[in-house]
Amino acid sequence: MKSNFGDCFQISVFGESHSEGIGVVINGLAAGIELSVEGIKREMEKRKAAGSISTKRHESDEIEFLSGFFNGKTTGTPLCIYIKNRSQKSGDYEKNRGLIRPSHADFTAHEKYFGCEDYRGGGHFSGRLTAPITAAGGVAKQILAAHNIHIGAHIYSLHDIDDRPFSQDMQQLDNEIIGLDSTEFPTLDKQKGEEMYRLAEKAAAEGDSVGGVLEIGVSNMPTGIGEPLFGSIESKLSALLFSVPAVKGVEFGLGFGFKNLYGSEANDAFYTNGSEIFTKTNNNGGINGGISNGMPIIIRAVVKPTPSIYKPQQTVDINKMENAELQICGRHDSAIIHRARVVAEAVTAIGLTDLFCERYGYEWTGN
Amino acid sequence: MKSNFGDCFQISVFGESHSEGIGVVINGLAAGIELSVEGIKREMEKRKAAGSISTKRHESDEIEFLSGFFNGKTTGTPLCIYIKNRSQKSGDYEKNRGLIRPSHADFTAHEKYFGCEDYRGGGHFSGRLTAPITAAGGVAKQILAAHNIHIGAHIYSLHDIDDRPFSQDMQQLDNEIIGLDSTEFPTLDKQKGEEMYRLAEKAAAEGDSVGGVLEIGVSNMPTGIGEPLFGSIESKLSALLFSVPAVKGVEFGLGFGFKNLYGSEANDAFYTNGSEIFTKTNNNGGINGGISNGMPIIIRAVVKPTPSIYKPQQTVDINKMENAELQICGRHDSAIIHRARVVAEAVTAIGLTDLFCERYGYEWTGN
Amino acid sequence: MKSNFGDCFQISVFGESHSEGIGVVINGLAAGIELSVEGIKREMEKRKAAGSISTKRHESDEIEFLSGFFNGKTTGTPLCIYIKNRSQKSGDYEKNRGLIRPSHADFTAHEKYFGCEDYRGGGHFSGRLTAPITAAGGVAKQILAAHNIHIGAHIYSLHDIDDRPFSQDMQQLDNEIIGLDSTEFPTLDKQKGEEMYRLAEKAAAEGDSVGGVLEIGVSNMPTGIGEPLFGSIESKLSALLFSVPAVKGVEFGLGFGFKNLYGSEANDAFYTNGSEIFTKTNNNGGINGGISNGMPIIIRAVVKPTPSIYKPQQTVDINKMENAELQICGRHDSAIIHRARVVAEAVTAIGLTDLFCERYGYEWTGN
Amino acid sequence: MKSNFGDCFQISVFGESHSEGIGVVINGLAAGIELSVEGIKREMEKRKAAGSISTKRHESDEIEFLSGFFNGKTTGTPLCIYIKNRSQKSGDYEKNRGLIRPSHADFTAHEKYFGCEDYRGGGHFSGRLTAPITAAGGVAKQILAAHNIHIGAHIYSLHDIDDRPFSQDMQQLDNEIIGLDSTEFPTLDKQKGEEMYRLAEKAAAEGDSVGGVLEIGVSNMPTGIGEPLFGSIESKLSALLFSVPAVKGVEFGLGFGFKNLYGSEANDAFYTNGSEIFTKTNNNGGINGGISNGMPIIIRAVVKPTPSIYKPQQTVDINKMENAELQICGRHDSAIIHRARVVAEAVTAIGLTDLFCERYGYEWTGN
Repeated sequence: MKSNFGDCFQISVFGESHSEGIGVVINGLAAGIELSVEGIKREMEKRKAAGSISTKRHESDEIEFLSGFFNGKTTGTPLCIYIKNRSQKSGDYEKNRGLIRPSHADFTAHEKYFGCEDYRGGGHFSGRLTAPITAAGGVAKQILAAHNIHIGAHIYSLHDIDDRPFSQDMQQLDNEIIGLDSTEFPTLDKQKGEEMYRLAEKAAAEGDSVGGVLEIGVSNMPTGIGEPLFGSIESKLSALLFSVPAVKGVEFGLGFGFKNLYGSEANDAFYTNGSEIFTKTNNNGGINGGISNGMPIIIRAVVKPTPSIYKPQQTVDINKMENAELQICGRHDSAIIHRARVVAEAVTAIGLTDLFCERYGYEWTGN
Repeated sequence: MKSNFGDCFQISVFGESHSEGIGVVINGLAAGIELSVEGIKREMEKRKAAGSISTKRHESDEIEFLSGFFNGKTTGTPLCIYIKNRSQKSGDYEKNRGLIRPSHADFTAHEKYFGCEDYRGGGHFSGRLTAPITAAGGVAKQILAAHNIHIGAHIYSLHDIDDRPFSQDMQQLDNEIIGLDSTEFPTLDKQKGEEMYRLAEKAAAEGDSVGGVLEIGVSNMPTGIGEPLFGSIESKLSALLFSVPAVKGVEFGLGFGFKNLYGSEANDAFYTNGSEIFTKTNNNGGINGGISNGMPIIIRAVVKPTPSIYKPQQTVDINKMENAELQICGRHDSAIIHRARVVAEAVTAIGLTDLFCERYGYEWTGN
Repeated sequence: MKSNFGDCFQISVFGESHSEGIGVVINGLAAGIELSVEGIKREMEKRKAAGSISTKRHESDEIEFLSGFFNGKTTGTPLCIYIKNRSQKSGDYEKNRGLIRPSHADFTAHEKYFGCEDYRGGGHFSGRLTAPITAAGGVAKQILAAHNIHIGAHIYSLHDIDDRPFSQDMQQLDNEIIGLDSTEFPTLDKQKGEEMYRLAEKAAAEGDSVGGVLEIGVSNMPTGIGEPLFGSIESKLSALLFSVPAVKGVEFGLGFGFKNLYGSEANDAFYTNGSEIFTKTNNNGGINGGISNGMPIIIRAVVKPTPSIYKPQQTVDINKMENAELQICGRHDSAIIHRARVVAEAVTAIGLTDLFCERYGYEWTGN
Repeated sequence: MKSNFGDCFQISVFGESHSEGIGVVINGLAAGIELSVEGIKREMEKRKAAGSISTKRHESDEIEFLSGFFNGKTTGTPLCIYIKNRSQKSGDYEKNRGLIRPSHADFTAHEKYFGCEDYRGGGHFSGRLTAPITAAGGVAKQILAAHNIHIGAHIYSLHDIDDRPFSQDMQQLDNEIIGLDSTEFPTLDKQKGEEMYRLAEKAAAEGDSVGGVLEIGVSNMPTGIGEPLFGSIESKLSALLFSVPAVKGVEFGLGFGFKNLYGSEANDAFYTNGSEIFTKTNNNGGINGGISNGMPIIIRAVVKPTPSIYKPQQTVDINKMENAELQICGRHDSAIIHRARVVAEAVTAIGLTDLFCERYGYEWTGN
């Protein structure tokens, strides 16, 4: 527990980094949805984005549909997407076994599971578990797209380099989101993206890592979605975003920027063109009282620098209960924010789909 | 939907600002817990904190136990805490009825409920609904305190004035939290608190409002609490915190501050004294992989300036679908952060209790 | 726990026989449903059905809407229906306190709650808790009736006297159900009903009680409602029916009668008139694979004789842990089946509404 | 939806008769449980019981642990058990495709899923889906057995032949249950079992099928397990039992036999030996008010004759919307009750484990 989520559109994630495989069971899909398998595969590919700042892992991440998909359409019964783990060799992991990695879940998992957890490669806490989440998100994104709702994220900041923020104009935002779809290192300002990439390369060269902030936008969200109190869009999406490894903060609209404003500056004035209602500013990020108000939904999530670094670190050998030094070998990522972005988009899609299903039922996913 | 929360320790909140009354049903309490009714009432009082920056509302907020409480102890069956609404007069609200208040839920509720919502005083979206949540949190706080776990929050920032942060030393943090318990305008640095109060008074005088940031600390949390992925402490608590009106951002440990650090700076090195394990820094706020690591749990939540201000505002009359000006009368709060603090503590207690119950069952609440 | 039910149309029941009051919180109602309060009150009255075989209790059972109901319509936020308990005097109950009543929950509640349960009048296990369930069912019945779906139950058997079964013709069944609506001692064959009543009176005179079987029918259920496996109509409704005190068996269609048939006799042959599909027999009670097939839904539930009798009974004094004799005083029911019938109809309505909402969302309740 | 079950010990079942494979994800297992894989495989074998009355299917039903199981122990994270489907050839099924099989889910699935369901071999409604449920039940049975709680079922009746009922003496019941464990056609009276088998063979020879009643017993259940109202043992277990294909009735203790008794005959008198409390009779099947009272738990479920018969049947061709005759070819089961028995035991184990976890948390499964 608690590797499942959703009240109506429900996902149940299973697997460990080095178990037989990893996967997700999705409940709450209508029958007859024509899923693009290519579309899901594209999401999987973006999540693996390699290059000079990322691990060249031999993950093929080939998805299989074990159930719920027949003749190119959903059957309406549980959809299981599965990814076989290529290699379950644990030799590399035995070596460092007692040395808990700082800022990883090694220690807390050990405490929680009495040392019975699958310690290889992070086990169920491995970033690898975001692969089935990405696949489930790929399904949800297609469902939302059929309703013209698009979700995209870009690297808002990497360390001290900032991209420009999303446009608050709905049409322009929609274009920006669609433009981001095919990118592997997504920024709105291409030059800033290149600067960021060079910064990440530099960190990689020094055996270090960098963090940053993702900005997630949702275009064409209708008004009136979200539930009061614990079912607010913010509650639903933050619960999901905080399940993405390395995310340590989530904000909506101005978020922490609200601190410095007076109410008279912060409030989003309404206006109408006679048939529809808009706000002049969008400080609330498209959400009032937890419910969508028809403006762009704007979310930001901070992704801490990946804790896997090559510099020697002080830690404890929990088998001997002695202080020790840890030196990680092999290749790792100096930045994961461009990969986390795919997962952030995925969980945003999952959460919003769940809110739609709560209101309109699972049949909504098929219409 | 979705005014209930919890997998094992469950609350179901009901009521509207001007309905007959508001309340909460709690499931998942063991039998025989000797609840201090006085303790719960104290929480209720702090939530009402009045003064020159807050509304003098005629809310008595007297709690009644409709069920589940017998001879001073819980019975093990649903505990219903109820607060009768004093006055259901809606005269004041009829006047402005068509004028949707900026940054409130008036518009979104209208869109969601087709105009059938109880529009008086914010209805189910009223800050008043935090009263039963506070009562439920009072119960949870007593359960946690019986396990020596304490929760406290202070005003970390009000507009541009900052309090000092919580200590990362567990014993000192515990003292700080206990010290905050009886305060109505809680800061660690008393002088900063006075400055903040004056700032809020000044905003009140100008018909304006101010926002700020709460810091919530949890002391003596054992290791190994929290579930993987969607059951992380961060997921659980953020979902609850974002249900508190006006909260627009939540972060754990360094939170958005992680952005500017390298991995080698951000990682919390482990060390041991031979019997226990600690981290030298606590950038992760006591949580790794979603699970408690035995260090202080540190959370921050931004509270936007209360949208109820007296300055004239641009808005729309949704009955006439015309642009209009809104001038709110009566008395309101220029700051609500010191009241939101009680609710933030309450939901933190509710979320942590739920995580304990998931692992140890509802019997845990009685031991 | 676990006094709540429902995945999408959710009820949370609270209260004890002699607590301040009893009630139910309903989540999952659309906004704008024009509920007939009179209709709900009628259900409440039927549940209290008195006469020479039933207790003259001084229960007024007056329902109050604490929230969620405004200007004669649902608001879309939690609907709380409350019934104040008239008298909380526990004098009568103190006397027999240690003497656990056979076939009641006195002993098991004592074991479960360590003696901290509210022992007065059965506490949370009292038949009185069916009052809020009846009220919630009254809401659900109105929602279903707006879709032309009707639910009714009659006394199929009382001890050794049998009523005639429901018709399998949909139109005739619908008429039978509507005819039962206003009855307090519901049978299809009026003369059989009179015989049953006399039998119950005779048992009352002897200080004894009788049991029987309820038959519940649902007319005009569309095809395709119900979910696979654990979400079958049978799973959902049986879970609810077994929560009605004294129900010890539930069957659908032929139920236990299937035992004596060959497959060739039991199977319901299909036929069509070219536009719709029917079955020639309805042995499966309108349900195949857990899902409605368009034929009448037929359910039977056995209600054991009420365990409250006046004849002396062997039992144990749990305070002294000694064998003892129990002699119950006061007035009780010699038959409760005609009252249980209202609750059986209520939970059937609740369960079916939940299944509709799972498929079509809570908005379905308003359409 | 709704192929998952459980509040604390949760299973999520996926797969279709002819999809890539079928499986189950289990959440709510403690870390470090030493599962006997052999034990689970034995359950799988019993479910396949072949012979002259059952299909010789080429199901290997080999279970794989895709996750959650490491070095012979549970890891505490989701356990996924998977069974690859051998052959996904659908040739046989295309032939009869439009001819809906009477008393099967063909028609209702078609109505529910608009013809997009996987129609091959019953799809998600196939009896084959009981294989992963059996595997999950095998896990739950081992957990309960570690607490000395045993679950067994026997064929109480096959058509008009009756076995003797379970003993109400706890020790003798425990022996009977253990004795049943290794049988493939389980009866307490061996000779009655042989008569039943001959009856089933005779039905098979005639292309027909027979139904019957299972009796399920649970020994050594402690007092105080089960929750009030919708969390009663009866509610939980009936919801699970009705998810087993062909089950159309469930009763506890005397069940429908209560109808013919007076309260003075039906009530189970209590007595004590000074330290423990027992009942003289066990008409309530070990359950009062939904909660275990320490006596044997006795459940019966009727299993209708398997609807797959070789005699020609009247049906409808839903593609042509014409009346038609169906003649099923191939080999099928003339009785499935001895196979359903394994599933009935499995779901009983799953339901009781869930109730224990609700009270004591998932850690209970490991103690």
